[in-house]
Amino acid sequence: MAYTIGLDYGTNSLRCLIVDVRDGRELAAEIYQYPSGDSGILLDNGNHNIARQNPADYLKGLQAAIPAAVKAARKADKKFSADKIIGIGVDTTGSTPIPVDIDGIPLALKKEFKGSLNAYAWLWKDHSGHAEAAEITELAKKHRPQYLTKCGGTYSSEWFFSKILHCLRTDKKVFDAAYTWVEHCDYMTGLLTGTGNPKTIRRCRCAAGHKAMFSDSWGGYPDKKFLSMLSLKLAALHDTLGSRTYTIDTPAGYLCRQWAEKLGLPDGIAVAMGAFDAHLGAVGSGIKEGTLVKIIGTSTCDMAVAPNTEKLPDIPGICGIVDGSILPGFWGLEAGQSAVGDIFNWFVNYIQPGGKNSGSHAELTKKAAKLKPGRSGLLALDWNNGNRTILVDQRLTGLLVGQTLHTRPEEIYRALIEATAFGALMIINRFEEYGVKIKEVVNCGGIAEKNPLLMQIYADVLGREMKVSRSAQSCALGSAIAAAIASGFYKNFSDARQRMCGLKAGIYKPDKNARRVYKQLYAVYKKLHDCFGISSVRADISGVMKQLLNIRERANV
Amino acid sequence: MAYTIGLDYGTNSLRCLIVDVRDGRELAAEIYQYPSGDSGILLDNGNHNIARQNPADYLKGLQAAIPAAVKAARKADKKFSADKIIGIGVDTTGSTPIPVDIDGIPLALKKEFKGSLNAYAWLWKDHSGHAEAAEITELAKKHRPQYLTKCGGTYSSEWFFSKILHCLRTDKKVFDAAYTWVEHCDYMTGLLTGTGNPKTIRRCRCAAGHKAMFSDSWGGYPDKKFLSMLSLKLAALHDTLGSRTYTIDTPAGYLCRQWAEKLGLPDGIAVAMGAFDAHLGAVGSGIKEGTLVKIIGTSTCDMAVAPNTEKLPDIPGICGIVDGSILPGFWGLEAGQSAVGDIFNWFVNYIQPGGKNSGSHAELTKKAAKLKPGRSGLLALDWNNGNRTILVDQRLTGLLVGQTLHTRPEEIYRALIEATAFGALMIINRFEEYGVKIKEVVNCGGIAEKNPLLMQIYADVLGREMKVSRSAQSCALGSAIAAAIASGFYKNFSDARQRMCGLKAGIYKPDKNARRVYKQLYAVYKKLHDCFGISSVRADISGVMKQLLNIRERANV
Repeated sequence: MAYTIGLDYGTNSLRCLIVDVRDGRELAAEIYQYPSGDSGILLDNGNHNIARQNPADYLKGLQAAIPAAVKAARKADKKFSADKIIGIGVDTTGSTPIPVDIDGIPLALKKEFKGSLNAYAWLWKDHSGHAEAAEITELAKKHRPQYLTKCGGTYSSEWFFSKILHCLRTDKKVFDAAYTWVEHCDYMTGLLTGTGNPKTIRRCRCAAGHKAMFSDSWGGYPDKKFLSMLSLKLAALHDTLGSRTYTIDTPAGYLCRQWAEKLGLPDGIAVAMGAFDAHLGAVGSGIKEGTLVKIIGTSTCDMAVAPNTEKLPDIPGICGIVDGSILPGFWGLEAGQSAVGDIFNWFVNYIQPGGKNSGSHAELTKKAAKLKPGRSGLLALDWNNGNRTILVDQRLTGLLVGQTLHTRPEEIYRALIEATAFGALMIINRFEEYGVKIKEVVNCGGIAEKNPLLMQIYADVLGREMKVSRSAQSCALGSAIAAAIASGFYKNFSDARQRMCGLKAGIYKPDKNARRVYKQLYAVYKKLHDCFGISSVRADISGVMKQLLNIRERANV
Repeated sequence: MAYTIGLDYGTNSLRCLIVDVRDGRELAAEIYQYPSGDSGILLDNGNHNIARQNPADYLKGLQAAIPAAVKAARKADKKFSADKIIGIGVDTTGSTPIPVDIDGIPLALKKEFKGSLNAYAWLWKDHSGHAEAAEITELAKKHRPQYLTKCGGTYSSEWFFSKILHCLRTDKKVFDAAYTWVEHCDYMTGLLTGTGNPKTIRRCRCAAGHKAMFSDSWGGYPDKKFLSMLSLKLAALHDTLGSRTYTIDTPAGYLCRQWAEKLGLPDGIAVAMGAFDAHLGAVGSGIKEGTLVKIIGTSTCDMAVAPNTEKLPDIPGICGIVDGSILPGFWGLEAGQSAVGDIFNWFVNYIQPGGKNSGSHAELTKKAAKLKPGRSGLLALDWNNGNRTILVDQRLTGLLVGQTLHTRPEEIYRALIEATAFGALMIINRFEEYGVKIKEVVNCGGIAEKNPLLMQIYADVLGREMKVSRSAQSCALGSAIAAAIASGFYKNFSDARQRMCGLKAGIYKPDKNARRVYKQLYAVYKKLHDCFGISSVRADISGVMKQLLNIRERANV
């Protein structure tokens, strides 16, 4: 008997899974809600770009969730005991860099930086660095075009160097106090293994490759000369980043005594290299060549792999193409939508439609499910938080067209779901246009689990079967799988996948009639997408409202 | 001492004013809410184009409102008595044609048509005839281009022949049972004077000229040959329409004994020719050359006059240019927005934003008033009910752009108000481009009265002072003024205006800073307006979202 722990640090909470490595059975799944800020996010009312997390929440979460999960596992299965745990894996959001001092302590945990938001973890969806992102993109276009080919052609404000450069430019005190910046996932594995010294800390391939332009093909991180054109201080930071990165089959190290004691776990068990949640979510959902894994939550990540024995073309707009970022031996391809569940949450929580008691997700979903495709006459662009793939442009916003004096909240709600489906189809089409064939779509994440309406709309819009990963905690399961490899229980991911992954019963199949209507709506979506999103496009959009009215009238028959 | 009664049949209610003709003092203002349908409007859930009224409400309203007003006037002023009433004036919405039998009885009042919606009054905002409107426009373009030059280049689905032709095409039973169709205003004056026989009924210049393509310059209504190209039955209807129309200074006749008794009024007093509410609202607000009167309610009408001694150019998109439709001796110019208050009502009543107790007009206005111009990053098109002026296109819909994950209901509410202001500016600009100089803007209607936020935004967007008509019932006051002329109390409208009209204290003046921001937003509005509204326009709109974000960020400083 052997078990691993998968830790999944999300946007609002930490999830901790204890998994039987023989068959993927989940003995315990603990959820720890971050106590700080607005559901774990530190916001600034005057600046919507800011989204931070409190590193203290990460530590409190460890100490709360792991012992609780161990207790729950023991209750679930009497044969289980903590000493049979053979490894730990960790995923986190990202890019979520944390400024740390020379001892690896996050500045946010130090008295003198208490309340200074720039000293906290810069959460993935922080867009403070949008000007710096544009600057990095421009500079790379000129001097290092190769850097952009692996990240969709545009360096994002959500990423490592944009955030650090913005801090450097706007908060000298924090920047100067930081010895270096570490990704949240690397911070966690460093902490657990006692190897968090920033001079020697192991940084993971996934974070470095996707968000910090690390590639062996140009010798690691962006070179110092390039960074010095942005700032000499950024070039100096280069020296603290090291020159190697590690894939998830590698142990980051072994659980140190201090944390083994704190957590009640065996001393010295393997801790796998960390990765981003989406990447380990893909692993937990059984990713393989030809399978697109969609992790659908507040945003989506759309993950695919392709053998690294083949040369891949550069795929414009795909935000990451990194060797070994998901599975060793494969290109990891990351795409995604900047907001999905967040858009529905915005509508329900901020617009609060429908008045007293009738504006909940459940009520709106119930009513929206009764509407025929095309019946509302509405079309939305899913850009309330910008567009990650395929436009790679954070400075885009939402759009809703087609509203009349009769438009109802549930119609808007459905239009928002449909908009995210159209955005998802743009991504699949982009993959396939560049030769990455998608034969299967496996979904995971809270929304895939809980929202059959959304899954059916996705099946209808995408024209593909929608499968759902068996685990309700695919990311944490992926971490537990990485731990199973790092500890030596499995030799490779193919073996682990066959034993530990699976699908939920029930597959969403495209409906022919819905498909027909959504093809028409997608054509209108694509027109607006291209006109509002791509600067060279000039099209006649004067027919858009009439097209939607025509589709509505036909749907009404 | 002399008094007149002004009747104003609106979309949801009848208002009855008793006015002292010497100084315009309002002794009584009764409001009668129509009992039928949804606030007086008969809707069809399966077809959003349908909006009808029940003629029975018109009669019940007369008998309720006039005696109540007389009673209230007596209470307000002991010197008043019903026998000092010297005349009645009537305005109604329009084009609101009613199918009537050979005795002038509305089919809707007959047993066999009870519940048959097509037999009821086709309310101005009924869009059932949109296909027929397009057909009439096409035919006129080919064979009678002159017909279109006075109605903005497009015949609307809201107008007389579109509605009748649609009935002819879709409900033979109703069409064949109708001897003719009369406008609501003509029905009322015919009824009160006992001259409602459809063979001899006097039809007013205002309704005929604006909505039924009547012009002396081509010999009255559209000729039979033209109508026969649409349908032989429509050509046959031509014979029932007569060949003369009458302006509001003319008596339609004199109050018949039957109705004098029912209403408790003196037998034989003058009943002025009717007109549409907006036209008499313009009169009640003191319209003269250089004054634009904006009647702001569920929709707006924007009214101007120009001396008919001068030749006016055809003004594209202005939905009516009719000699004598407002004041005798002047071109009456009608423009307008298909929905203004209706858009705010839609947002509050249908979307019900803000949850429990916080989504009312009052609450949203309070919060919206605290927002700086440009601060929301939002921009809307005010087309939820199509665009009357300057695009003359009912098949347009609403649009909202700029929403993020933080957008709040009050921001949308303000953006909707701003959108209607931008639409209002498009209209003024169109007038002036064609030589109709606007020196003064006088507003009236419920929203102008009650919403200082909207008035201030209009002042800031239009860059002009916003004045508000003194009367809370400018349309009914206009009717009372028409009655004062028809009864011979005043010789002309200039005299009547000086005595009976006035302004409210307090003028809204443009704020310099707001003006600057709104100029930028208007440029973006105009771009979207032209791209979505005009088929020949192809512009680069990829910068729109970024422009709005830039404006927002500057407004945030």
